[in-house]
Amino acid sequence: MFEATKVGRTVDKASFKLQQEALRTQLLEVQRELLQTDIPVIVLVSGVEGAGKGEVVNRLNEWLDTRGVRTFAFWDETEEERQRPRYWRFWNAVPARGKLAILFGGWYQAPLEQRFQGLCNDTELDAELNRIADFERMLINDGALVVKFWFHLSEQDQQARLKELSRDDRSRWKMLPKKGRFHEHYHRYERIAERVIRYTDCGISPWYLIEAEDRRYRDLTVGKTLLHAVKVRLSQPPAVEPPSTSSHLELPDVSSARITLLDQLDLSKSLDRQTYKSELRALQTQLNELAWEAYNKKRSLVLVFEGVDAGGKGGAIRRFTNAIDARLYRAIPIAAPTDEEKAHHYLWRFWRYIPRAGYITIYDRSWYGRVLVERVEGFATDVEWRRAYAEINQFEEQLVRSGTILLKFWLQVSQEEQLRRFKDREQVPYKRFKITDEDWRNREKWPEYKAAVNEMVVHTSTEYATWTLVEGDDKPYARIKVLRTLRDTLKTALTREIEDPGSRIPCAGKRPKGR
Amino acid sequence: MFEATKVGRTVDKASFKLQQEALRTQLLEVQRELLQTDIPVIVLVSGVEGAGKGEVVNRLNEWLDTRGVRTFAFWDETEEERQRPRYWRFWNAVPARGKLAILFGGWYQAPLEQRFQGLCNDTELDAELNRIADFERMLINDGALVVKFWFHLSEQDQQARLKELSRDDRSRWKMLPKKGRFHEHYHRYERIAERVIRYTDCGISPWYLIEAEDRRYRDLTVGKTLLHAVKVRLSQPPAVEPPSTSSHLELPDVSSARITLLDQLDLSKSLDRQTYKSELRALQTQLNELAWEAYNKKRSLVLVFEGVDAGGKGGAIRRFTNAIDARLYRAIPIAAPTDEEKAHHYLWRFWRYIPRAGYITIYDRSWYGRVLVERVEGFATDVEWRRAYAEINQFEEQLVRSGTILLKFWLQVSQEEQLRRFKDREQVPYKRFKITDEDWRNREKWPEYKAAVNEMVVHTSTEYATWTLVEGDDKPYARIKVLRTLRDTLKTALTREIEDPGSRIPCAGKRPKGR
Repeated sequence: MFEATKVGRTVDKASFKLQQEALRTQLLEVQRELLQTDIPVIVLVSGVEGAGKGEVVNRLNEWLDTRGVRTFAFWDETEEERQRPRYWRFWNAVPARGKLAILFGGWYQAPLEQRFQGLCNDTELDAELNRIADFERMLINDGALVVKFWFHLSEQDQQARLKELSRDDRSRWKMLPKKGRFHEHYHRYERIAERVIRYTDCGISPWYLIEAEDRRYRDLTVGKTLLHAVKVRLSQPPAVEPPSTSSHLELPDVSSARITLLDQLDLSKSLDRQTYKSELRALQTQLNELAWEAYNKKRSLVLVFEGVDAGGKGGAIRRFTNAIDARLYRAIPIAAPTDEEKAHHYLWRFWRYIPRAGYITIYDRSWYGRVLVERVEGFATDVEWRRAYAEINQFEEQLVRSGTILLKFWLQVSQEEQLRRFKDREQVPYKRFKITDEDWRNREKWPEYKAAVNEMVVHTSTEYATWTLVEGDDKPYARIKVLRTLRDTLKTALTREIEDPGSRIPCAGKRPKGR
Repeated sequence: MFEATKVGRTVDKASFKLQQEALRTQLLEVQRELLQTDIPVIVLVSGVEGAGKGEVVNRLNEWLDTRGVRTFAFWDETEEERQRPRYWRFWNAVPARGKLAILFGGWYQAPLEQRFQGLCNDTELDAELNRIADFERMLINDGALVVKFWFHLSEQDQQARLKELSRDDRSRWKMLPKKGRFHEHYHRYERIAERVIRYTDCGISPWYLIEAEDRRYRDLTVGKTLLHAVKVRLSQPPAVEPPSTSSHLELPDVSSARITLLDQLDLSKSLDRQTYKSELRALQTQLNELAWEAYNKKRSLVLVFEGVDAGGKGGAIRRFTNAIDARLYRAIPIAAPTDEEKAHHYLWRFWRYIPRAGYITIYDRSWYGRVLVERVEGFATDVEWRRAYAEINQFEEQLVRSGTILLKFWLQVSQEEQLRRFKDREQVPYKRFKITDEDWRNREKWPEYKAAVNEMVVHTSTEYATWTLVEGDDKPYARIKVLRTLRDTLKTALTREIEDPGSRIPCAGKRPKGR
């Protein structure tokens, strides 16, 4: 694979100067054009040690208008990052639409190094590479352009380059842990790099392999290739995945064949005032203790509350938050996205609030809006909300794998009960703000929402993140069910160790020594 | 995920009869329509034990016109199949365009069962699921419609069904290895099934989960869903992946920046007559012995010969085949595809000739036509040949993982040497048939072919299947280089064990006990 990066390509000084000028002008032009579009551009700069990744990044920053460019290196990790799921730092680096981000190594650096150091095997590496491919596909489906450069050197050239570098900085000489083993190391690294590239070199985000020996050839090729990639992208519709042929069951035309999960809920369930009070008190005490235990064990908690309008989400959330220390949790009400949020992938705004290890985030409505309101109201296209199931599953899997405890509640009430509550809200002054015309309009789409909820549960109730459906007509019953589920889940989860990341997310949690 | 398949959906007898009639007529209609298209339809029938997969298949065969349908079960394996790479049997089951194939379990059965029996772990399962997703994406990109059904039963229903079945056939009772452990087994199987479905439920080939308790509901839903999926597919363009934004380097505008691998070959290399003769004899003797050793060790050999016209492929192949027993090898000259071959994916015709364990297939031109002649002559679209690199890599990886020894030769001659040979061929009567107008036309596209070859080597020279570039101006030199490379590779490969399939293709080679 790397043969063609060792053929000795060069560019003379005069040609470089001449061609650089034209290139710079054009780069600045497409950058201005980009600003008018909804395309985020991600440039990944990777390659063998000594190939000059830093030089390339400096060059790009010199050529581009830096106001539209942010550069990220991932070689060290902040405390903030260490306390969150692994991809959190990458989500923070994803540029807004119209902007560029240059990423040193990006999501490839850690798996590569960790495989090289023998911290994971090939099968584990492949699993991580498939996660990376999913991640990139998700960004690209959302309109992003991902440009991946790999800089390569022949064995001789690398050895010479590293020697040269080590004069200024001894640490760069690490490819040569023991003199004489360079040859072996070079080939082992190349084998792993080939695997990484091969598994992630798909049509929609290809790798560009570049010979790095001649700096002028290297930089000019990077600039011209980036320019071309952006130009092509500007002239083409985004490379979204095509719609599925059809993804829902065609049901027989009898009502007994159309029963849903929501139909199965016994909404008449209730709890008497007395039992409610005493149970509430007991549960709140336990939850307070469990929240502190989670804090001490550095386990974070993410709660998702979804449900029909006036389903009782707010009341249930308050019964929980009342019980716990205000320093430990954050409740995020999800309304229409801000401008900044709109300029990113729809999951971006939820990643923002992912709690640090030991803390709690409560989402009052959530990413499930994509497959509920956005689906029913047509804010998301068919293709968009259909692929969201897989995207959401991957997102939640990342949370859970990194040790987050995740619970999802759906609060259901009957149509009659909802009507009663709406009317009630209109009567009571301090509740009036809670009812809008939109609520009445949503109510008319009851069957559409029911179908959407049923499909949502089927696709996103997973072994690591099941849905709890709550019978909500009786508020006391619903609240106790929520709190009890919370307590039981927390109790069980806190006695378990975080699944050894090495067993399923290889190349994750494990960090290279000395970093 | 399976919650909604346990809600008790039913269809009464009268409704079934009525709706079945309309359904059958429509199914036959779309089947006729299908025949006029280039869409192969693959129906996968999977699900928990006792859910009635066999009944569903019978029903579909009753409803459809069986002349356009073939049914495949994979529960046992023929000797022919066992001696070839694992996916060979699935390639044989892929229907021609316009036809249907119904596959019991398909490529999902083995990984599921093997994970259930503890023969592989989750990470290994995931790796296999990603391979499956790639395989399906490849078929779908080629125009196929893949419809995947999963039939599910609640724990009680399954227990009852298995008891009922075991009256006729004791073997079906295997879900209950020890009475009392049914509950545990049920949930373990469900957890694995969920994982399998979750990882392979992508937009372009969704899973349809169907409650299997009520036979009428089950069958009618299958029929209607299949009908709908085919109808939607008939009304839509195929769900091909979009073109990549750009996948080649933009090179600086100086000739020193455009050197390719082929430019680096020293075509003046030659061998004197004397050395050639003695080396040839020695190599042929060794190769004969190695071919028998491979036969005894059940290792198969696949040789790919590509090169410019008049590059000397035929001559090199004959020097090898002359040396070995005619029973051991098969030489396949690749010309334009037959009608039957055209009705399948382009890789299909190469899978046909994959040798049994211990045998040799020599491809005189090969699947690389896709990224060479088909690219340069425009027989394949940009999107098609670009994604072929990854498809070819996956194909070759399967061969090598299953123990096949794979070698690929590119025979290069200079333009002058080619001209000399063309003219020579026109002079010599028995060589005249070897030269056509097409050869002359191809010659004019020399630069395009050179670029295509360079890119082909970059993308498909992998750790498990490297390209050998052969300097071909001097025939003796070229032939000896081919034979020597063959000998050295065979020697090394035959002393190594086949990589334990379990370490990288979990769920592959290992077969469930008692099958």
